[in-house]
Amino acid sequence: MTPPRAVILGGGFAGVAAARELRACQADVLLIDRRNHHIFQPLLYQVATAVLAPADIASPLRQLAERQDNLSVMLGEVSAVDRHAGTLVVTPAGMAQRTIRFDYLVVATGVRASYFGHDEFAAHAPSLKTLADAEAIRARILSAYERAEQADCIVERSRAMTFVLVGAGPTGVELAASMAQMARVTLQRNFRRIDPAATRIVLVEAGPRALASFDESLARKTVARLEALGVEVRTGTRVDAVDAQGVLAGGERIEAATVLWTAGVQASPLVAMLETKTDRAGRACVEPGLHLADDENVFVVGDAASVMQDGHPVPGVAQAAIQQGRHAGRAIAARIRESRAGTPPFRYSDRGNMAVVGKNFAVLQRGRWRTSGIATWFLWAVLHVAFLPQVQNRLRVQIQWLWSYLSGQRSSRLIPETPSNP
Amino acid sequence: MTPPRAVILGGGFAGVAAARELRACQADVLLIDRRNHHIFQPLLYQVATAVLAPADIASPLRQLAERQDNLSVMLGEVSAVDRHAGTLVVTPAGMAQRTIRFDYLVVATGVRASYFGHDEFAAHAPSLKTLADAEAIRARILSAYERAEQADCIVERSRAMTFVLVGAGPTGVELAASMAQMARVTLQRNFRRIDPAATRIVLVEAGPRALASFDESLARKTVARLEALGVEVRTGTRVDAVDAQGVLAGGERIEAATVLWTAGVQASPLVAMLETKTDRAGRACVEPGLHLADDENVFVVGDAASVMQDGHPVPGVAQAAIQQGRHAGRAIAARIRESRAGTPPFRYSDRGNMAVVGKNFAVLQRGRWRTSGIATWFLWAVLHVAFLPQVQNRLRVQIQWLWSYLSGQRSSRLIPETPSNP
Repeated sequence: MTPPRAVILGGGFAGVAAARELRACQADVLLIDRRNHHIFQPLLYQVATAVLAPADIASPLRQLAERQDNLSVMLGEVSAVDRHAGTLVVTPAGMAQRTIRFDYLVVATGVRASYFGHDEFAAHAPSLKTLADAEAIRARILSAYERAEQADCIVERSRAMTFVLVGAGPTGVELAASMAQMARVTLQRNFRRIDPAATRIVLVEAGPRALASFDESLARKTVARLEALGVEVRTGTRVDAVDAQGVLAGGERIEAATVLWTAGVQASPLVAMLETKTDRAGRACVEPGLHLADDENVFVVGDAASVMQDGHPVPGVAQAAIQQGRHAGRAIAARIRESRAGTPPFRYSDRGNMAVVGKNFAVLQRGRWRTSGIATWFLWAVLHVAFLPQVQNRLRVQIQWLWSYLSGQRSSRLIPETPSNP
Repeated sequence: MTPPRAVILGGGFAGVAAARELRACQADVLLIDRRNHHIFQPLLYQVATAVLAPADIASPLRQLAERQDNLSVMLGEVSAVDRHAGTLVVTPAGMAQRTIRFDYLVVATGVRASYFGHDEFAAHAPSLKTLADAEAIRARILSAYERAEQADCIVERSRAMTFVLVGAGPTGVELAASMAQMARVTLQRNFRRIDPAATRIVLVEAGPRALASFDESLARKTVARLEALGVEVRTGTRVDAVDAQGVLAGGERIEAATVLWTAGVQASPLVAMLETKTDRAGRACVEPGLHLADDENVFVVGDAASVMQDGHPVPGVAQAAIQQGRHAGRAIAARIRESRAGTPPFRYSDRGNMAVVGKNFAVLQRGRWRTSGIATWFLWAVLHVAFLPQVQNRLRVQIQWLWSYLSGQRSSRLIPETPSNP
């Protein structure tokens, strides 16, 4: 008898957690991802700002198979899912399409940027979801300074040195602070014709305040800190147009050669293939057990799922994704052991929510507890190192942070070029 | 009075050494490179085989300006040089072309791969000169295993697991050994349908033996070591055809999805713009003082120069490039202090030549001294860390090496993807 097959789509926090939970299970587990690596998303903005190298926050998905005998990993793109037949169509990288059968399915494909119906913004305002995005943004930021240094006129120069960030959620805030730090410290004395400290960073938010997912008192402190770093924060300001030269925000034109988008998310297109109820952002509206209403063997977890708890949505953070992935993995394991096992409802246990604002400052909220400042920042650093997968990633990140902290330098200031081969 | 301007083309070992030598000089020094970073070329093969991350061996060129007030750095591509007018045409990245005047010129633009008249090989057999090349090769190697894992037939699978390396110089040897190590150790237990230890690596060399620049006894030991690692070494074998499915080498067809080219070099096209005498590989035939025969203010240094010493060519190694760059920098500094200063002849002082063959084995030759084995390998590691620029690169590389040595893991197993933005 062949063991039942559980297929997991997506090797992010949720997918990896689900796969691990099936370790001791009499199942054939297949993890499919378009990328060959898992990334530690909370530090992605540090790759975009040259603090960390891509490999510092990435670990090869295939390495999971080393410690889990019932797990296979496939690098490929899924183009169709047929829930009723229990099959999906996948194209492994560089090969022909094939159909794969599944008994259990975990969809953990996360989200991508949403431009709220303005997909034409994407070309001029890249978003930050993958390592490739982070490297592309890093190249844009560093290249802007190179152009500013060589600019012939003051208009061109100031446009090159103006950065507009759309969206003041945690990613926008962390990115803005890190960019400000780079401008004021790292790049000092590296140029002859420009003063990087004159960099203008504008953080634009359509909603009424920054860090909407945090308590208002923490958001206020965050904005004060950003302003101290020289970041202009504009809330209640909608971006109506983006082009290669700047944005139109709240009726005002801002000339900026670099625009970055961290404003909204939508579920990966895979969710739509499930033909199930979704919310406005395309996330699957799952049952309390995280499976679909009409199919107890198909789960959607992590950012791709819309899960309500006590009347509030469970936030799209790493902790929630990990807990959801584990829940789905456990539910499948129980079903495989005993085919009539029901799926208990999922409960998100809030371990706290953090955002870091440059050097020596972070905000933390956990339940009714709120704190901010240098001790919080230190806690943030310790926790983020501790949660990184792989010992050598932890070592590398610690050394890099210590080095950056003491010297102000960033070691991954690379503008990639195309390979020298045609 | 404006100070004289010295322009240095190329931020490799030679160019950087020349710039530093002009530090205390009453000159306006401009360093131009197509890339924004200096790379530590001797470890490039370790980026290609996922041991090190690109940032580990790179340092931002612009950072040199921090400690040298008379130095400017420009990211741009030089398209013409007029020696007689003392001008060159440069296109700074993303900007319009401009003309720059110089009083002294140092050309240190290095070499690129030569396919000996078969440029059509390049598409199927990439070479290893830049960080982008190393990342592209890394992606090819890792992707080949992914394809092998999903292959439907044994022919396809064995083609995906066969790697042909053309050229058994130090780069070819180091790359082959590192790839063998990865196959036999790092990738073990990561796959379900293939055994990475069955990888076939064929190192093809047209010349009569491997490591032609080393003593024959060391070359023999190297080949024995490579064979112990499972690498097939074929000397006296010319590659007559390369396509996406393999090579024709010495009359025999070898089916291989991945072919890498480390066989030959030719000078960068910039040398031809100098309209001076060149050797067959396009390198400038310079005077003993490293300047051109008819122009004492234009120097060519590093791999781009053909320098003879005691009837032998000075080798294209890092030490020679550094010494030549320093020589040119000193000569220009002397000329600026006293306009009638002559240029003394350059003498290459051979600090020794090393190649590493996998774990625990390296060969070293210095003058009449030859040694090989684990102690040499350890010396190799110590020296390569010591010569790396920037403290944090040294720390990172040490940790990475220690980690890889103890665990067999490689942390940069990333297959890059295109950014998620269109």
